[in-house]
Amino acid sequence: MGYRPDRKTIPIDEARAILAVHGEPVSRAERVAVASASGRVVAQALVADRDVPPFDRAAMDGFAVRASDTSGASPDRGIELRRIETIFSGATPIAAVVAGTCAGIATGAPVPDGADAVVMIEHTERDGDRVRVFEAVAPRQNIGRAGSDLVAGEIALAQDTVLTPARLAVAAALGITELEVFRRPRVAILSTGDEIVAPGGRLRDGQIFDANTTALEAAVIAHGGEPVVAPRTGDDREALARAFDLCLKEDLVLFSGGSSVGERDFALDILSARGRIHFEGLQLKPGKPTIFADVDGVPVFGLPGNPVSCLTNMYLFVAPMLCRMAHLPSPVQREATVRLRDEVVSPKGRHQVYPVRLDGEDAIPVFKTSGEITSLARADGFFEIPADVERVVAGTIVQVVMF
Amino acid sequence: MGYRPDRKTIPIDEARAILAVHGEPVSRAERVAVASASGRVVAQALVADRDVPPFDRAAMDGFAVRASDTSGASPDRGIELRRIETIFSGATPIAAVVAGTCAGIATGAPVPDGADAVVMIEHTERDGDRVRVFEAVAPRQNIGRAGSDLVAGEIALAQDTVLTPARLAVAAALGITELEVFRRPRVAILSTGDEIVAPGGRLRDGQIFDANTTALEAAVIAHGGEPVVAPRTGDDREALARAFDLCLKEDLVLFSGGSSVGERDFALDILSARGRIHFEGLQLKPGKPTIFADVDGVPVFGLPGNPVSCLTNMYLFVAPMLCRMAHLPSPVQREATVRLRDEVVSPKGRHQVYPVRLDGEDAIPVFKTSGEITSLARADGFFEIPADVERVVAGTIVQVVMF
Repeated sequence: MGYRPDRKTIPIDEARAILAVHGEPVSRAERVAVASASGRVVAQALVADRDVPPFDRAAMDGFAVRASDTSGASPDRGIELRRIETIFSGATPIAAVVAGTCAGIATGAPVPDGADAVVMIEHTERDGDRVRVFEAVAPRQNIGRAGSDLVAGEIALAQDTVLTPARLAVAAALGITELEVFRRPRVAILSTGDEIVAPGGRLRDGQIFDANTTALEAAVIAHGGEPVVAPRTGDDREALARAFDLCLKEDLVLFSGGSSVGERDFALDILSARGRIHFEGLQLKPGKPTIFADVDGVPVFGLPGNPVSCLTNMYLFVAPMLCRMAHLPSPVQREATVRLRDEVVSPKGRHQVYPVRLDGEDAIPVFKTSGEITSLARADGFFEIPADVERVVAGTIVQVVMF
Repeated sequence: MGYRPDRKTIPIDEARAILAVHGEPVSRAERVAVASASGRVVAQALVADRDVPPFDRAAMDGFAVRASDTSGASPDRGIELRRIETIFSGATPIAAVVAGTCAGIATGAPVPDGADAVVMIEHTERDGDRVRVFEAVAPRQNIGRAGSDLVAGEIALAQDTVLTPARLAVAAALGITELEVFRRPRVAILSTGDEIVAPGGRLRDGQIFDANTTALEAAVIAHGGEPVVAPRTGDDREALARAFDLCLKEDLVLFSGGSSVGERDFALDILSARGRIHFEGLQLKPGKPTIFADVDGVPVFGLPGNPVSCLTNMYLFVAPMLCRMAHLPSPVQREATVRLRDEVVSPKGRHQVYPVRLDGEDAIPVFKTSGEITSLARADGFFEIPADVERVVAGTIVQVVMF
């Protein structure tokens, strides 16, 4: 059977140090519609080509005045001005405000020439074109100045900015409809093994449906990548080699399966022949049979065949690298600080990943065994137990990484 | 100009109580491919139609044995068994294991008839078909039992489950390719005002580009909704009425604009004629001119025209309702607990929303004025200052809702 003895494993801190220096941020960019750019990352800084707002505008409903005309006005002492026109938003003033006059003005409407302040409607009384002002205003009061939001020539969205609804609004405020963003890293996903069958197919005796492709596909998208699903491949050395060669054209390769030592050997042989294997086992539970290699700068993860450790290792090791490659600041994950409800034990010398379900401020352990995907499906996230900790008592505050 | 005096405003707790009883969860469902169902919500429970795994399988590489045959084995005392075959994963055993025999078996391969345990490869020595076992195993040891993950008839994914990569893997493990999920609530987005122009168009004097449609579109998607962008409408009563009638066919309506009191009157008149206005102003800064109405069960938000308060009110008030309508448990937002670096003052009697930028464990206030979208774009999130707090000193620990 070609079994080999237990391979050497490395501590996960060592693995993380290796992974931290692999996976280059992608440099390719593409233009996308602003409306669909949420979550994408700016590849080329957007420079304001105009002032925003483009003109001085009223910040309140009221009357555009010369501030000096309101000097001495107070609730007890109204000063009378003559209204020369009313300016609605979207309209253009037709006359300048001169001494002794004012113009009715709506929020957002352009301030007419001559006026340098707006008196709020609440501090006035009007009778036809006669307006009494009961408040002294300072120059610029209740006026949004041209360029106060953005000045022409200013960088509106810097390179590497992650686009949020507010940042897309900045582009829209400049009249922009497309943005130059980094392409998503392309991530090849390859499930291997004679025992796996694509969902929707028919199982023969001894076979199971492939859950890893589906899980990895969704997780890749959630961390800024573009999944490229390779055809599933059996435990055949030549077919596997061909599959790897196709996958290695992408930015990152995730393969899973080869759960037996013999099957792993095929993958290790193929990868050694093409590049460098950095580690082939982790001091981690679950998730020990994990390979990392790079082939001409393309990082390759060999994830465990069992769906639970495949997916937790995706979160623990692949997600940080993928986010970095996608120019995203850190894994797009939520964390919760909660109280562990029940005691959990952990094997000595192995870092452990423990799925939990959240119930209010409590975390309830839901681990069954590493092969059982329902344990992960019933969990809301997981916490980590360092290798030197053997027991986490009930009541301990733990940091849960949410799925 | 038809100005009205300052309308009555209500405290935000009162507004939240009103909003909590509006917005029915959608009941419409649709079938989607499992691969694209991430983040969707199960509308019809998925019941396992088979056991997962479908057969007893080896959890380790090793030898399938009758546990009783290994009785008395120890590191010092090997027990010899005769290997009758080797079972790879995906293959079918050809013979039963009887007393004195064993079968080589790879992780994931089906356990042959007669065998009831697996001895790990590490605890054996092999010479051709002669295998020496140095460990006594108990029945079921190192075997993943048929149905240990899911038993036929069991609910694999309950209704209202939010689909994560792990939960999609459960569907895949059952061979499922499509899931019945709730439809996303359809959210009409209507920007109004004579002053606004769609990005990509040409500005006349006194006009600005519409930033709200873009911001709301992205925020609606982020909270589980399907945006339905209505054509922008000027401050014309009849055009506005027609636009509302179209929008009211959707599940939820968001309109923004009508920044002046006069413009707001149009919308209030139209909505009063069709349904009930629950509030038309909030004791909130920014975000005071906010309307909430319902028309035959369709919730209608009138959001401020200025992009900052439009978007913060989207997060504060619309997002919780939209998530509820989408069967999502709560706004899909991350929160950060951080230290406020600089003092912030807040107007008495008005709840305030304050944008901040995060710098490590610190939150740096970035507020300019409510009209300035760059203040929000430079922020990573916001925190809230209750109405009765006038000053938040530097060093205060605040809870930041992330954009």
